Amino acid sequence: MFLPNKKASSSRRLWPNRLWLLNKLIGKPLASFKSDGQKIGCWTGLPILGLDGLSSAAYGPEAALVMLLPLSGLGLNYIGPIILVILAVLTIVYFSYLQTISAYPNGGGSYTVAKENLGENAGLLAASALMLDYVLNVAVGISAGVGALISAVPSLMPYTLSLCLIVLTLITLINLRGVRDTGFVFSAPTYLFIVTLLAAIGLGIFKAAISDGHPEPIIIPPALPAPAIGIASLWLLLRAFASGCTAMTGVEAVSNAVGAFAPPTIKNAKLTLTGIVAILAMLLGGVAYLVQVYHVGAMDETHGGYQTVLSQLVAAITGRGIFYYVTLSSIIVVLALSANTSFAGFPRLARLLATDNYFPHAFALRGRRLVYTMGVLFLASVAGLLLIMFQGITDALIPLFAVGAFLAFTMSQSGMVIHWHRAGGKHALTSLIINGVGAIATGCAVMIMLVAKFTEGAWITVLLVPALVLLLKFIKHHYDFVALETRSPLSLNLSHMNQPIVVIPIDRWSIPNENGLHFALQLSTDVIAVHVLIDEDKCADLQKAWREYVIRPVNQVRLHEPELVVLSSPYRLFQRPFLEYVLKLEQENPRRIIAVVVPELVESQWYQYLLHNHRAAALKDILLREGDRRIVVINVPWYLGA
Amino acid sequence: MFLPNKKASSSRRLWPNRLWLLNKLIGKPLASFKSDGQKIGCWTGLPILGLDGLSSAAYGPEAALVMLLPLSGLGLNYIGPIILVILAVLTIVYFSYLQTISAYPNGGGSYTVAKENLGENAGLLAASALMLDYVLNVAVGISAGVGALISAVPSLMPYTLSLCLIVLTLITLINLRGVRDTGFVFSAPTYLFIVTLLAAIGLGIFKAAISDGHPEPIIIPPALPAPAIGIASLWLLLRAFASGCTAMTGVEAVSNAVGAFAPPTIKNAKLTLTGIVAILAMLLGGVAYLVQVYHVGAMDETHGGYQTVLSQLVAAITGRGIFYYVTLSSIIVVLALSANTSFAGFPRLARLLATDNYFPHAFALRGRRLVYTMGVLFLASVAGLLLIMFQGITDALIPLFAVGAFLAFTMSQSGMVIHWHRAGGKHALTSLIINGVGAIATGCAVMIMLVAKFTEGAWITVLLVPALVLLLKFIKHHYDFVALETRSPLSLNLSHMNQPIVVIPIDRWSIPNENGLHFALQLSTDVIAVHVLIDEDKCADLQKAWREYVIRPVNQVRLHEPELVVLSSPYRLFQRPFLEYVLKLEQENPRRIIAVVVPELVESQWYQYLLHNHRAAALKDILLREGDRRIVVINVPWYLGA
Repeated sequence: MFLPNKKASSSRRLWPNRLWLLNKLIGKPLASFKSDGQKIGCWTGLPILGLDGLSSAAYGPEAALVMLLPLSGLGLNYIGPIILVILAVLTIVYFSYLQTISAYPNGGGSYTVAKENLGENAGLLAASALMLDYVLNVAVGISAGVGALISAVPSLMPYTLSLCLIVLTLITLINLRGVRDTGFVFSAPTYLFIVTLLAAIGLGIFKAAISDGHPEPIIIPPALPAPAIGIASLWLLLRAFASGCTAMTGVEAVSNAVGAFAPPTIKNAKLTLTGIVAILAMLLGGVAYLVQVYHVGAMDETHGGYQTVLSQLVAAITGRGIFYYVTLSSIIVVLALSANTSFAGFPRLARLLATDNYFPHAFALRGRRLVYTMGVLFLASVAGLLLIMFQGITDALIPLFAVGAFLAFTMSQSGMVIHWHRAGGKHALTSLIINGVGAIATGCAVMIMLVAKFTEGAWITVLLVPALVLLLKFIKHHYDFVALETRSPLSLNLSHMNQPIVVIPIDRWSIPNENGLHFALQLSTDVIAVHVLIDEDKCADLQKAWREYVIRPVNQVRLHEPELVVLSSPYRLFQRPFLEYVLKLEQENPRRIIAVVVPELVESQWYQYLLHNHRAAALKDILLREGDRRIVVINVPWYLGA
Repeated sequence: MFLPNKKASSSRRLWPNRLWLLNKLIGKPLASFKSDGQKIGCWTGLPILGLDGLSSAAYGPEAALVMLLPLSGLGLNYIGPIILVILAVLTIVYFSYLQTISAYPNGGGSYTVAKENLGENAGLLAASALMLDYVLNVAVGISAGVGALISAVPSLMPYTLSLCLIVLTLITLINLRGVRDTGFVFSAPTYLFIVTLLAAIGLGIFKAAISDGHPEPIIIPPALPAPAIGIASLWLLLRAFASGCTAMTGVEAVSNAVGAFAPPTIKNAKLTLTGIVAILAMLLGGVAYLVQVYHVGAMDETHGGYQTVLSQLVAAITGRGIFYYVTLSSIIVVLALSANTSFAGFPRLARLLATDNYFPHAFALRGRRLVYTMGVLFLASVAGLLLIMFQGITDALIPLFAVGAFLAFTMSQSGMVIHWHRAGGKHALTSLIINGVGAIATGCAVMIMLVAKFTEGAWITVLLVPALVLLLKFIKHHYDFVALETRSPLSLNLSHMNQPIVVIPIDRWSIPNENGLHFALQLSTDVIAVHVLIDEDKCADLQKAWREYVIRPVNQVRLHEPELVVLSSPYRLFQRPFLEYVLKLEQENPRRIIAVVVPELVESQWYQYLLHNHRAAALKDILLREGDRRIVVINVPWYLGA
């Protein structure tokens, strides 16, 4: 029995309407051929991929100075050399990554480089370290930005977590829209940050130059306390170096995302990396010089009147005017948005892992805006969870995060050494040496960080990274198994082309059941209707209807008679006895398929869903979960009011 | 291709294991024939059905005294007459309900009585009022009990809501186990409450008697303040009466649940009702007399040092010894558990409404323990929501709640008047008069409550009850529509017994797809494989495999060739183009069924669920939601590792 097709035409109209909000929030879907339009250039690449690295300048020097606190004013003598060492490492890393970009123009993240040159385990080690780094960077970046805002406006303190989550949501939505739109939002604060901070540093250096290295601060920085110890131990300096290295996190972002650049791809990527590293070096060097000249030290965050090093420094150079507030605001915004670098990197890494079968395949699918939606959402969820767990204050996570980043550096550099070794040739030796020095430098940095920060949380990395490696290998193992199970068969098997045995559950003689039975009889001559006995009267009614309305017309046209089977059910269960009957039938007929026809009432309004018992849906579910390869479910829908 | 049946035998073992926790919490499933074993007798009936009524004695008199606060000591002169009027109404209601029990031995709740005698609308009005009453009673009862506990142990204050929810969970679990087990848990505190409170009252009356009505209190109650007004206005007395009437809520419970009693059903029910009313009357009368003798008035709850009337009274009679604390504890427990009466009443009412098609049918299904699980869970959820919304302090809901209860009383009594009028005969006139007086008395009480408490929340009842009536009628209207749509067809339609057109989505040539195609070819000679083009290479591979592995063997056995159709998809969507193709095919073939074969990979472990993309499930879903009556979905599962 078929009624005319009223529903088909109207249902498709729902498609655009339902997605109205989605379209507003993350933009209309983009077709695959528009892929090139979403590529980034040098000027948009710098904010998108450089935010993390550049913002490190805001906390790296301070982190080193905090370690030197016991030395007080004497510590300022050491900050210069420490930053010099860090700049040296940065330079090495820079040249190493330039080479990586040339060698891997499709994106030479640590994972790819390590996997191709050092093997699977090294690749996975780099990938795990990077994933940890990316996730932590989001949480740490946002909470650092919000923390800076709160130290400026203490009355916002109770809203710490809410502010963090609002920023996270904002960044997530921007990233779901896709890379090109993203650049626009991030450019303004990034360039403001660069310009104002470089201007302040330039002015400071100029003042120092014209005053023979003894400029008069406009706002005098808080006096440094008397030193607790008179001379720096090696251990103290190593700890200061390990902390200062956080200033370098984020510079690997460009090499991971070479593929996202518009042509000329390699040139754009190299230019962007050069820009980022040059500005970062200027900022770090400038700050390191000026804190000595202006006698600015780190302050104890737990004491009242706390100010960041940059705040003291800018106030000393320019006073607390409009320039001061603009500079400080741009620092806050850039810190909060530095999380975005992870959003550029993580989904790409997850996609690489997914295409290599180390991560769920959903991470390799491009969403409606040509971004890897799953990666963005997963990163946002995990970071959100971390923020909620730590109530928006994630200082404790910083050591974990720097170790992850440097571990990835080291794996990448070591991989490049093997790469050049294999490549051979004239330039290869120079390149090999550059990357070798890079590997040794960053490797030493990892060891120093692990030792210096072991008790402060770096030990968690030692447990977490290998655990992640095992998880990735486990996922790969599962996919290998599935690939074997679903491999291409040689040829279509055409033996046992019997009719299926068709089973249809029937509670009463109704139009949807009649419709199902009609279809069942089209499929096979072996049709069994199964009634689960819960109410004696209902069963008697059904048997009567069966004789009159089914058997009689079937006999009239001389079709094969369907059979009516009644099952008992002492516990008033319906699915269980039915499932057991079907499984028994399957075992008794080893060469035939059991096709279960499930007539289902389909509601057209959501509230109607609440009014029905969904036996059909539950039955389909249990048959799928506990069924077998020879049990096939046929869903015959009956639309209400269609 | 079929592998041996390894899964079928092991899967069924999961059934008992998975439900281990459920079995522990709410007991093993009970078979239908054990139904009689869960019936209740008189001694278990009193706690199960009487808790609500009896616990009212703990707050009814106090509610009246609070209204008399402006009169201070003078108010005590009025409490006697007010309670006397309430006792008179209680007596009338008692005799009315005795008659209802005789007339409706299968459970004569207000809904049934009103519907059968006054018609559908009156029945629904009573049902709505009762549902409101039941839901509110759970929230109010639990929060009153927890409130009493907190006034005894103020340090528990921060845990108000948690304590409320713990009590709610406990009562819910007990009720999911079923009625017989419930009785055991509730008996002890109920009987302790009755015995200790009656003992205290008896001792008080004895002391009053031997001291010529002027006994010496052991702990002198706080002095009553000077009266604000000298004489009681009628308005004040009406408000006091309206508040005092809460002392009667809950006495209808027995008449709703007559069917739950063990035989002799009617006698047991009447005995239980008599017990409840007699004890309630003694408690109310005793308290009303003793507050005058001991000069105990209500205290302002918002002031420090607040004590309930019963606490003052028991302390005055017996001092603050062990007896005092045992009595007060039992009051707390009984208040908290009084919510249970709603758990006995609501699921039964919901089942009645569901069998009459006024409420979702799921409420008429008996669960594994022969209780109406949905009713219990729904009641618990709504009450839990109210508790959370009001943070565990639900005083504001009390006026709503009493109006609902009395509205149901009135509807029930009015219905009985018509019942006797129709029955005629000798006894009928007496019965008619008794119920008529009851209807008028409770009707007046409803009017007084509505007027006296209108601004305090009774107005919500005036909106909410009719809204509920409309909702119930809407549900009925929907079920009538569905009944029409799914009515018994006269006979099986055997026209158009064509083969279906079988459509199978195919992404690549794999074992699960081969298995699906094999089944498709068993069903029909018209088989169309549909490939949605997302990746050009994949498509070419598939077309090659199709020619070699499908067309060639099919031609060898001279089967009808299946067709391979390739659809384009610029937005990388898979379901949408496929659905549109199927809908088009359906419109082009108006007399045939389109059977969509969906091969599906089924995971055996939950974590595997995370690793796959669930395209099959999504496709089944969209076909069901946006499909049509002639589109049938055939799910061919492929079990991993089976």
